[in-house]
Amino acid sequence: MLEWLRRYRRAMLAGDISAGLVVAMMMIPQGMAYALVAGLPPVVGIYASILPPLLYALFGSSMTQSVGPMAIISLMTAAALAPLAASGSGLYLVLAAQLALMSGAVLLVCGLLRIGFLANFFSRPVMSGFTIGSAILIAFAQVRPLVGGQLPQFHLPSALLGVGALLVLLFARNSLGALLRKAGMRAIAADISVRLAPMLVVVAATALSVGLDLQAVGVAVTGAVPAGLPGLNLATSEAHWRSLLQPALLIGFMTFMISMSAAQTLALKRQEKLNSNYELIGLGTANIGSALSGGFPVTGSISRSAVNFAAGANTPLASIITAALLAIALVAPTGWLALLPLPALAATIIVAVLGMLELSTLRTAWRYDRGDALALLATAAGVLVMGVEAGVIIGVVLSMGTLIWRASRPHIAVLGRIAGTEHFRNIDRYPAETRPDMLMLRIDANLFFGNVEAVNQRIEEELRSRPGTRNLVLVMTAVSSIDTSALFALSELNQSLTLHGIGLHLAEVKGPVMDRLTGSDFLHALNGTIFLSAAMAWDGISSAR
Amino acid sequence: MLEWLRRYRRAMLAGDISAGLVVAMMMIPQGMAYALVAGLPPVVGIYASILPPLLYALFGSSMTQSVGPMAIISLMTAAALAPLAASGSGLYLVLAAQLALMSGAVLLVCGLLRIGFLANFFSRPVMSGFTIGSAILIAFAQVRPLVGGQLPQFHLPSALLGVGALLVLLFARNSLGALLRKAGMRAIAADISVRLAPMLVVVAATALSVGLDLQAVGVAVTGAVPAGLPGLNLATSEAHWRSLLQPALLIGFMTFMISMSAAQTLALKRQEKLNSNYELIGLGTANIGSALSGGFPVTGSISRSAVNFAAGANTPLASIITAALLAIALVAPTGWLALLPLPALAATIIVAVLGMLELSTLRTAWRYDRGDALALLATAAGVLVMGVEAGVIIGVVLSMGTLIWRASRPHIAVLGRIAGTEHFRNIDRYPAETRPDMLMLRIDANLFFGNVEAVNQRIEEELRSRPGTRNLVLVMTAVSSIDTSALFALSELNQSLTLHGIGLHLAEVKGPVMDRLTGSDFLHALNGTIFLSAAMAWDGISSAR
Repeated sequence: MLEWLRRYRRAMLAGDISAGLVVAMMMIPQGMAYALVAGLPPVVGIYASILPPLLYALFGSSMTQSVGPMAIISLMTAAALAPLAASGSGLYLVLAAQLALMSGAVLLVCGLLRIGFLANFFSRPVMSGFTIGSAILIAFAQVRPLVGGQLPQFHLPSALLGVGALLVLLFARNSLGALLRKAGMRAIAADISVRLAPMLVVVAATALSVGLDLQAVGVAVTGAVPAGLPGLNLATSEAHWRSLLQPALLIGFMTFMISMSAAQTLALKRQEKLNSNYELIGLGTANIGSALSGGFPVTGSISRSAVNFAAGANTPLASIITAALLAIALVAPTGWLALLPLPALAATIIVAVLGMLELSTLRTAWRYDRGDALALLATAAGVLVMGVEAGVIIGVVLSMGTLIWRASRPHIAVLGRIAGTEHFRNIDRYPAETRPDMLMLRIDANLFFGNVEAVNQRIEEELRSRPGTRNLVLVMTAVSSIDTSALFALSELNQSLTLHGIGLHLAEVKGPVMDRLTGSDFLHALNGTIFLSAAMAWDGISSAR
Repeated sequence: MLEWLRRYRRAMLAGDISAGLVVAMMMIPQGMAYALVAGLPPVVGIYASILPPLLYALFGSSMTQSVGPMAIISLMTAAALAPLAASGSGLYLVLAAQLALMSGAVLLVCGLLRIGFLANFFSRPVMSGFTIGSAILIAFAQVRPLVGGQLPQFHLPSALLGVGALLVLLFARNSLGALLRKAGMRAIAADISVRLAPMLVVVAATALSVGLDLQAVGVAVTGAVPAGLPGLNLATSEAHWRSLLQPALLIGFMTFMISMSAAQTLALKRQEKLNSNYELIGLGTANIGSALSGGFPVTGSISRSAVNFAAGANTPLASIITAALLAIALVAPTGWLALLPLPALAATIIVAVLGMLELSTLRTAWRYDRGDALALLATAAGVLVMGVEAGVIIGVVLSMGTLIWRASRPHIAVLGRIAGTEHFRNIDRYPAETRPDMLMLRIDANLFFGNVEAVNQRIEEELRSRPGTRNLVLVMTAVSSIDTSALFALSELNQSLTLHGIGLHLAEVKGPVMDRLTGSDFLHALNGTIFLSAAMAWDGISSAR
C-alpha cells in the first residue's frame, strides 16, 4: 500500500497527468450513462467516480486500474433494487448506496480473510458468456430511451438525436482511429481521441438540445439534480437489509471477478504481480467509499483501465487526478447536468456495451473444447432468460459442473509387468504380463470427493471381470493428495474387500500422502501391505493367499 | 429396470416378505412423524409411503433402497412452505404435493440428461455437517410438542407421556438389543426388534391416551383425517409455482444426495453396481408419484434401507410388499390415526434424528484434514443459523471452495539436469545443474481455470528471481488436460514473454494434449519449440538466442 508513492519519480508525472485528464473526460459520460443503467439519476454516476478511485489508489493492488461505475454491475444493481423501490425515488437512492456498502463490506471481509482464490470460481468461457448476455440485456433496454418510445412506435426528434449520436459513435469506434492515423497522428494519440468521442457527442447533443429547445418538442433530458456533494442516509428497515443480502453477495462476487480480469490483463502488459487479496481490499474500501458519497456499486473496468494505461498512467496518481477533476466538475455549477438529452446517453451506453460483445472466446472454445463453448452459450442464455443474478449462479454452477464432470472421469490404468524387467505399464498400450490372482491399478489423479465414486466403480468393474482376483494393488505414483472423503472411501473399500476375501495393498505412495495416512484408522485397518514399488508388490504378494 | 424380476428365484421370497413386513411396521410411525416435521397432517406421511416405493421399485437402481418420507427433506419442505401458507391448511397440502411434483420433475430431467455426476458436488464432511445441523434443528423443534408447551413452561400430562416415551425409546435404542441377544435371540432378530420399538411405543401411547382419556386433560392428538385415498389438486397461482422453483431445485438436489449416500452404503455391502442416472430417474418418478397421491417430497433413507437389508430384502419386491401393507392400513378404518398423542410422536422424531448426530466423520476429519473438519463445522453452523435451504448452498460453496482452494496451489518444480545424465529433477531435492539462460518448470497438475492464475504467478516469480532467463521450458509430463481458460492463459503468457524477449517452449507434451493443441491459435503463435523430452530441450535451445 502506497509503496508506489515512495518509489515515485518525476518522470512518471507527465504520463499520470495526461492519463488522469483523459480518463476524467471518459468517466463523465460513462459514469452518468451507467447510473442510468442502474436506474439512478446520472449525477450519482459522478458521485460514484470520486471517492472510489481515491480509496482504490490507497488500498488496491493494480497500478493502472480505473475503479468506478461499470455496465454489468449497474445492471445487477438495477435488478437488485427493482423489487424494492421505484427507480429514481429517494428510497431507491438510499438502497443503492446501501447495496454498495454491503457488497463493499463483503469484499473487504473476504480480503482480510485472504480468500482471493475465490476468483477461480468462474472459468473464462463462462465469464465471457456472462458478459455477452449482460451486454445484450443492457443494449436492448436502451433502445427505448434511444428512440423515445417503445418500438415500433418512436418519437421522431428523440430518434433522430439518438440514432444520429449512435451513428457518430459507431463511426468514431470503427473508422476514426484509422483516419486520424492516416492524417499523421500517433497511434496512441489516435486511440485516445477515439475514446473521447462519447464526451464530445454528449456535449454536442446537449448544445443542440438546448440551442433548438428540443426539450419543448418532447426530447427527454436527465432533469434537475441536487446541487453539491451528497450526504449519506442509510436509515432503512431491517427487511431492506435482509433483502439486499443475497444481491450484495452476488454483486460483490462479480465486482471482484470483473475487476480481477481487468487487472490481470493490465498486469500481463506491465509484467507486474497482482495480489488478489489486496484487490479485494481495494474494491471493498472503494465500494464503502461509494456508499459514503451517495453512490452505488463500482468496480474496475477493463475499457477505462486500458485507456488509463494507454494514456500513460504509471501509478495510481492518475486515478487521483481523475477523481480531483470530477470533484471540481461537481462543485462547479451543475445546472448543465440537468440538460443532457437521454437519447444521446442511450447511444453512448449501446456503443459501450457493443465492445463487450466479443465473440473470439466463443470461437476459440468452439474449436478447442465443445463443452466449454456450450457452457459459454448456456451462461449467456441464462442471463438473457433468467436475469443477471440467476446468471451469476448459473455461471458458477456451470464452471464447477465442468470441473466436477472432468474430475469424475479420472484416468485409471490396469498395470502389467514388462516381461523380465521391473517396469510396470498400462496393459492396453504395452505387451505386459498380468497375474490372474492379482489386479494392479494405477490411479492417475488426486483422490477427492469428486472422483471417489468413479474410482470405486472402476475397481468394482475390474474385479467383476476378473473373478479370480485375490489381491488388489493400488499404484499411487500420481496421487499427491487424498482428502477426507477419499479416506472414508478407501476405508470402506478395505472393509468390503475384506468381506470378500480380497487383499488391498498400496504401492509407491508419495511421501506427503504417506505422512497424512500414518496414524489414520484406515492404515490400521488395512488388510494388506504398503509396498515401496509396484515390483516389490509383484514379488512380495504370494499367489497362495 | 425390472431386470431383478426376470432373475427372481423362489429362495428370495422369504427374505423379501419379512423385510416388507418389518419396514411397513417401521414406516407407519416414521412416515407420520416426518409428515409432522414437514408441517403436514400425519396421514400425509402414509400417503407418501405407498406410490413412491412402488415407482422406485420399477425405475430405481438400488435393490434394497427404501423410499419414503425422510427427516431432512421434511425439514426442507417445511422451510419452503412456511412463507407461502399456514401449516396444515388446504393450500399448504396442495403446495407440498406441488413441491414434490417439481422436485420430482427436476430429478427426472437430470436423470434423462444423464448428469448423475452432480452427486459429486458435496464432499463427505460437508454432507455430515449438513446432516448434523439439520438433526439439531429438527430435534429442537420437537421439544415443544414433546412437553406440551414452550419450555420452561410445560403441560404435565403431555410431558409425562412424551418424556416417558422418549426414555423407553432411548432404552430400546441403547440397551434392548444387547438384552435380547443375552436372552438368546439372534443378533439380526434382536436388531430388527429394536427397530420396531417406535411402532410399539406409538401404539402403547395411543392405547394409554384413549384408555385414560388424556385428550380430556389437554394432551394434543393428531386430529381427524380425511378417510380413504387422496386426490390431486394443483390449481395454485403462477406466483406459487415461481416461489417454489428454488426450493424444488434445492430439495431435488438433497433428495439425490441423501438417497445416493444411502444407496452407496448398501451397494458396498451387497457388492452391487449403482447407477446414479437410474437413481435420479427412480427418485424423480417416486416424487412425482408422491405428488399424484397427495404426498410430499420423499427420498431413500439410510435408516430404513439398512433395516430393509438386515431384515432380508433381496429385491425391490420387499418395497412393493411394504407399499401394499401401507395401502391396506389406509383403506382399513383410519379412525385410530386421529388419536395418536403428539408427545409420543415427538419422542419418536427426537430419537430418530439422534441417530443422525453421528460425530465420527468430524473426529476423523479433525485428525486427518483440519480444513475438511472446519468445512463440516461451518456447514452445520450455517444450517443452524441461516436455515436448511441456505445450508445446502453453503455446503456446495464450501465443497467447491475446498476443491478450488486445493487446485489453486498446484505443485510446480524447477528442474535441473542430473550432471552427465539425461535425467531432470526438482532442484530443491536433487543436486541438479541449471543454466542461467534457461528456466525449466515442471507443472504437476492439469491446467484449468482453477489454477492458471497460480501457475502464471509462479512463472512470474521465478522469472523475476532469474533475470538472465532467455528461455522458459514448461515440462508437461503431468499435464493430461488443458481447458479453454488455460489455453488463453498460455497464449497470453506467450505474448507477454515475446514482448520481453523470452522464448516459450514445451516439452514432453502427452499425446491427447498435443492432439487438442494442434490446430489451436496458441500453437501457431508459440514463439518457441515443442520438444519431445526435457533433455532435447536442454540440448536444442542455444544459449545465444
